[in-house]
Formats: sequence, structure tokens, C-alpha cells
Amino acid sequence: MGGQLDVSAYYAAPKDEATKDWVMQQTMFRVKDPKRSLDFYTKVLGMQLITVGDFPQWGFTVFFVGYPPEKDLGPVPENDADKFAYCMKVPGCVELTWNHGSEAEDADRVYNTGNADSTGSKDGEAVKGGFGHIGITVPDVYAACQRFKDMGAEFTKSPNAGGMKGLAFVKDPDGYLVEVLPLGKGFPFPTQDTDCCGVSLSGGEGYADNSKKK
Amino acid sequence: MGGQLDVSAYYAAPKDEATKDWVMQQTMFRVKDPKRSLDFYTKVLGMQLITVGDFPQWGFTVFFVGYPPEKDLGPVPENDADKFAYCMKVPGCVELTWNHGSEAEDADRVYNTGNADSTGSKDGEAVKGGFGHIGITVPDVYAACQRFKDMGAEFTKSPNAGGMKGLAFVKDPDGYLVEVLPLGKGFPFPTQDTDCCGVSLSGGEGYADNSKKK
Repeated sequence: MGGQLDVSAYYAAPKDEATKDWVMQQTMFRVKDPKRSLDFYTKVLGMQLITVGDFPQWGFTVFFVGYPPEKDLGPVPENDADKFAYCMKVPGCVELTWNHGSEAEDADRVYNTGNADSTGSKDGEAVKGGFGHIGITVPDVYAACQRFKDMGAEFTKSPNAGGMKGLAFVKDPDGYLVEVLPLGKGFPFPTQDTDCCGVSLSGGEGYADNSKKK
Repeated sequence: MGGQLDVSAYYAAPKDEATKDWVMQQTMFRVKDPKRSLDFYTKVLGMQLITVGDFPQWGFTVFFVGYPPEKDLGPVPENDADKFAYCMKVPGCVELTWNHGSEAEDADRVYNTGNADSTGSKDGEAVKGGFGHIGITVPDVYAACQRFKDMGAEFTKSPNAGGMKGLAFVKDPDGYLVEVLPLGKGFPFPTQDTDCCGVSLSGGEGYADNSKKK
């Protein structure tokens, strides 16, 4: 395709009435230790724990976190059964799956996180991973990143590092990447002279965050 | 933790005012061939192509697909710059990343899809993958799955197969799993006597979809 694909037919396609109420509700990944993950997603990223599904017969528990659109859906219900049903209407939840016992494993990170990670491969070699990251959009990327920095988050790209300015990547406790992007903005993204890691706008060339490319 | 975690403190935590406008906007994974992926996501899953980001200097293009909440955000804009900014407000988009040239590789699937996939490992062995699946919620799981079946989708679990009734898993062209769940419902999920694959409600025991467990 020579790096080109004509997408005009996809843009021009009429909306499918049969799928107009469908919701992209979840992204599931496994986590080693649910407590450290819930701390990160609810305290650092500021999501809410919406519902929990416990399946002792299969040895796992799932925790749904996200930013529920309360102005459309109302507040998260108090009752457990109602919480789950409500969650099934919330777009963009993250389903954190805990396989019971993983928290006791020796390694700090036990699951392959996609990208070119070697975790979880039998030979210890990097895997050509398909999954790249989740991403959140926020009114002020620089302020959000200052919050993450203050809370001890690990950055793989601060807003001013690398070739694409005004976006960042942090790691969750298992090493999954979380992109931080400006809410409702196009290119060029808003920038500030210095970011939370002290990197100036002229800092770094290239696209060094290792998140998009193979 | 013995398979138990007390989540009451997470449920009781006050909402974080600083993050109330944040959006879980995207899940990114790499695809071999953008045309076959766009056909699947827009035609089979009925998503819209919202925006495209082309980065020839880095050798990749990204395609954002999803179900935009038009009643809140209005229709997707016509103008390219406006499309991108709009997309940055849409929760639960899927960002399909095409590394230019991947479409010409011999193998039908080239990226590790998470779970226990062996694709993309150097030794051909299964990887302990963290990423599990994305999931959509739909008003009628059985009707949606009939649509997917009619359009040639590959099922790893039809609604009546396995131990958990009323939800399904299909594969996208790269092998990534897509869960199909009932919109706004709790357990037990609605069921029908026979599903699109001819499986009756009594069909199959255990939880055989291989998507949650290690």
C-alpha cells in the first residue's frame, strides 16, 4: 500500500442504524496485584471503581474502573447487582483481571504488556506485541502529568520529551502504558515551556516513546 | 490474599473533582492490514471511522474507530483537523496502528494478541500475555452474534457455549478477541434457547473461552 490507504469510502459510509446504541465498553488486561492496580487507577488516574465480579469457581476476580459519564447515566448505584448492570453502559472501562495467587509470585511484573516486552516469554526474548497502550484525554496534560509525578508514577515520555510534544506516557504497576492526551484538541497540541520532569520544549528529538512502532 | 480483596474503601472514596472531566479515550493495538481491520471494525462491528493520523516520518498511520456518542457530542465533523479534536472527546475508541509494510508480510497474523498466544515470540512458544480483549455491549447479544456469523466472523465462544451463558467472543482479523455482552444488564444475562452457531443452552460445561484466565 506504500504507506497510503484511501479512507474516503469509510468516512462516507452511512451510519449503521443496527449498531447505533452499541458501546465500546471495556478493555481487559490481567494484573498481578489488584490492590496496587486499584490504587493506581483510582488514586493516580482518578478513575472510579464501578463494579467487581468475583468468580471463585474459575479462580479469578475482575474489577471495572473508569470515568462514568454521570451526567448521562446518573451516579454509580449502591447495590452490587445494579452496579454491574450500570457498568455495562459505561464506555471505555478498564477491566482489571486478577487470577488468584498471582500476587504471591516473586517477580514484580508477570504479564507481557505488548509492545516489545520480554516479560512472560519462555526464552526471555522480546515479543512482537500487538497491544500498545490505553489512553486518557484530560483538559491539561501538563497539570495531569505534574499530579502523576507527585504521586510517584513512572514516565516513559514526559510531555516535552521526544518528537511529539504535548502528550505523555506513564506506566501502570504492571508496566502497561497509559498515554495522556489533550481533551478535544487537534495538532499541534498545547504545550508549556517546561514539563513536570524539567524537560524543555526543545528537549529530545525523534519519537522515543516506543509505543506506536513495532 | 486468598482470592479476596476488601474493596469497600474504593467504593466509598469521594469522587476526585480534579479528574471529573477525564475520558478513557483509547485502546491501541497494531494491525497487519488496515483495510481488513477497517472492514471488520466498521462493517462487522458497525463502528465509525472517526479520524486518521498519518505519520510518514515515523512510518505509521493510526485509525481511530468507535461508537461516538453523537447525542452528546454532535456528529463527527467533516474537516480533518476537527475530526481529530472531536475524537479526543470520544470515550472507548480503538486506535488501530498500521506500521507501513506489515501488510506485505507472509504470515496472516504477525502480532502477539495477548492471552496465551505464541504469535510474535522468538521461540514459537506461548507467551503469558497480559492483554485479554476489548468488549462491546449491545442490546441483544444473540442478534448481534447472528450478524457477526452472517458476516463470516470467527467465534471462540458463541453465546450458549461454555459456562457463562449470554456472552460471546469473536476474533478480529489479527486475532484480537472482542467480547460481546448485554448492554445495561447484570447476572444472569438474558439467554435464548439456541444461538447463531446452533448451540443449545445446555451446551458445554466449564469456562472454555480462554480469555480471562492465565
